[in-house]
Amino acid sequence: MKAEIIAVGTEILLGQIVNTNAKYISEKLAQLGINVYFQIAVGDNKERIAEALKIANNRADLIICCGGLGPTQDDLTKDIFAEFVGKSIEVHEPSLKKMSDLFNKRGIKMTENNIKQAYIVSDCEPLQNDTGLAVGVALTENNHHYILLPGPPKELKPMFDRYAVPWLQSIIGDEQPLHSKFLKFAGIGESILEDRLKDLMEQQKDPSIAPYAKEGEVMIRLTTKAETQKKAFEKMKSIENEIINRVGKYLYASENITFEEALINMMGSRNLTLSVAESCTGGKISELITSVAGSSSVYQGGIVCYSNQFKHEYLHIPLAVLEGKGAPGAVSSQTAELLAENLNDQTKTDFSISVTGVAGPSESEGKPVGLVFIGIKQKDRPVKVKSVQMPGSREMVQLRAAKYALYQLWKEIREI
Amino acid sequence: MKAEIIAVGTEILLGQIVNTNAKYISEKLAQLGINVYFQIAVGDNKERIAEALKIANNRADLIICCGGLGPTQDDLTKDIFAEFVGKSIEVHEPSLKKMSDLFNKRGIKMTENNIKQAYIVSDCEPLQNDTGLAVGVALTENNHHYILLPGPPKELKPMFDRYAVPWLQSIIGDEQPLHSKFLKFAGIGESILEDRLKDLMEQQKDPSIAPYAKEGEVMIRLTTKAETQKKAFEKMKSIENEIINRVGKYLYASENITFEEALINMMGSRNLTLSVAESCTGGKISELITSVAGSSSVYQGGIVCYSNQFKHEYLHIPLAVLEGKGAPGAVSSQTAELLAENLNDQTKTDFSISVTGVAGPSESEGKPVGLVFIGIKQKDRPVKVKSVQMPGSREMVQLRAAKYALYQLWKEIREI
Repeated sequence: MKAEIIAVGTEILLGQIVNTNAKYISEKLAQLGINVYFQIAVGDNKERIAEALKIANNRADLIICCGGLGPTQDDLTKDIFAEFVGKSIEVHEPSLKKMSDLFNKRGIKMTENNIKQAYIVSDCEPLQNDTGLAVGVALTENNHHYILLPGPPKELKPMFDRYAVPWLQSIIGDEQPLHSKFLKFAGIGESILEDRLKDLMEQQKDPSIAPYAKEGEVMIRLTTKAETQKKAFEKMKSIENEIINRVGKYLYASENITFEEALINMMGSRNLTLSVAESCTGGKISELITSVAGSSSVYQGGIVCYSNQFKHEYLHIPLAVLEGKGAPGAVSSQTAELLAENLNDQTKTDFSISVTGVAGPSESEGKPVGLVFIGIKQKDRPVKVKSVQMPGSREMVQLRAAKYALYQLWKEIREI
Repeated sequence: MKAEIIAVGTEILLGQIVNTNAKYISEKLAQLGINVYFQIAVGDNKERIAEALKIANNRADLIICCGGLGPTQDDLTKDIFAEFVGKSIEVHEPSLKKMSDLFNKRGIKMTENNIKQAYIVSDCEPLQNDTGLAVGVALTENNHHYILLPGPPKELKPMFDRYAVPWLQSIIGDEQPLHSKFLKFAGIGESILEDRLKDLMEQQKDPSIAPYAKEGEVMIRLTTKAETQKKAFEKMKSIENEIINRVGKYLYASENITFEEALINMMGSRNLTLSVAESCTGGKISELITSVAGSSSVYQGGIVCYSNQFKHEYLHIPLAVLEGKGAPGAVSSQTAELLAENLNDQTKTDFSISVTGVAGPSESEGKPVGLVFIGIKQKDRPVKVKSVQMPGSREMVQLRAAKYALYQLWKEIREI
């Protein structure tokens, strides 16, 4: 099946946003064994959207449009598409009801243009929007398959994964479905990992081996077709074992979960509790952990001791350590150690971690941007302090320091 | 001038990389006053690249291709383009010399396929590659302008900025550049904002008015052509005033900065300090604030009091309030009030804010997912508590609650 993706939005053509939706959809279609031949971005313009649809219709079997389902005047996709396939626009009552209930609950008046988001195309299958208001559209007509998705990634991704993918699988029909297994690694860079697996990735055709990198984690995706997932995983077993032989020490999960989820799962299964004292990361570590549902059984809380005052008041770091001539300073091994030690004394959690460093943009205490100290305290054990020099912008230093601290914690716990 | 960008590379269609080159080029073209009507991504396939060129040639004056200039077999762009415009391929001697010098210096033998990178199209203007080997191409033929750029961003960006942009400016001649002004709003949804400005956006052609929404903020972009930014802003003044007359109470900045930046700037300019006690947002508020460079002059620190134990130990919330039959519970107006009150007693900051709620995925204390209480404490004033019911996933509830709390704080401070 030949697919074409049409992203609608003038902001893409003005270079204000990157077209990440096309990447996301393309990647998912590849997993389904569907070939994308063209990605198109077009502005919020009736004639040009219609032109893009016409061209795509002449060369693709599956056309996926994203964007332009919102409430505003320049959200045109549904109207133009309906006209293109000779259908009418009608209100999808369940979506309208959901919307009006929401507005009532928030006590806001629902404006006329909001109702647009509940429109669907006649004879189509509506695609539910679990994270927003604009309902999606799936339609098969004249041997062509069409999907309309909302533009905001936080709406597009769940709608595509939960509703569009099953619809596509039903179309692909009796073709053996594609199954993927994810091996997730932390503490190793993508290029080094690839270097270690180079020969495998070159020789290997089925299952295919594809690497993907994300800040602080690398994923290897094994993909093959089989009747059942069980059979697929059996086909993958030998290559999976070979990969684990080579880089198993960095493997944190054999499923597609984030590093934070794996850490929380591991700590939860061992009934371990955690507290956090963070300075330069400014709440990032706590935020990463608490983004995991169920983290409350592990994570007790944290102190974002951004100012020296806070470090002194709440974690009793002596001012003599933090300030003044010859003092180690807030960004020091001593401060990292005391933060973790004192926090653990106060909270009695099984583990306490601390982070202090220079996020930037400018140096601090004469210390360079990116210098970070991490304290890892296991109850009744001495604190282990690590220092690292992080590259990148303020945002990257904060994220990398947070990920690095959680990775150090993970290593400690794994070795218990 | 109508422009079309064609990105060549199968890795884009497989969703392995995001097409950031199209964004980069589009943004630069907008600044030159050149309108991009379509962005295309096509694989390393002779027929489909030729098809994309043909279609673009029928509707655009300027066609910019990126990718496929490298040494490998699937780098086809120059050959296909030369055939398309009826030109021949020839070696660009300076580029070849540069390449052979480099290989000699490194003591590596230059292979035949490397020489490909020194090829140009006859009659074209070569575009120098300061950060790589593949030379670029600029050509005007039959009233069309063509540019071929290498795919790697680190090669494409310098080549485009240093050599392609001047070439384009010489073509545009005296056309005036585009200038934009950004009006940023918080506390009002995109649809409501647009509803208020509907007539303006319908009538208004120059300056153009374009709305963009992001979680917790809406942006209006005014755009016009003028010799200088000063003249452009003068042209925008009356429409800008009319917009502010209508929705000025939601305006937080007249430049393209985030809400957090505007809040920190406002507090910093008034020498106001802040402390945060957050439960359900799990560090998100602190993380949003500390993502702003220079936030340390305002933000003193925060307590992520995720567990009741933490709320009790660090912020002295009576267990009788938090737990047990008939107690208000951790998610309550009382807890939000006490958190803000006690934190402010401890920190003596000018403002303290607190957040407690149910992030989900499941209800807590018999309270629904998305129920959030916000406490805003100004020193020596009673705490103001607001409750709100947030829609969406755990991640969205956490983000929306954090943004909402910061918005409530911003409103309080603005009214001082």
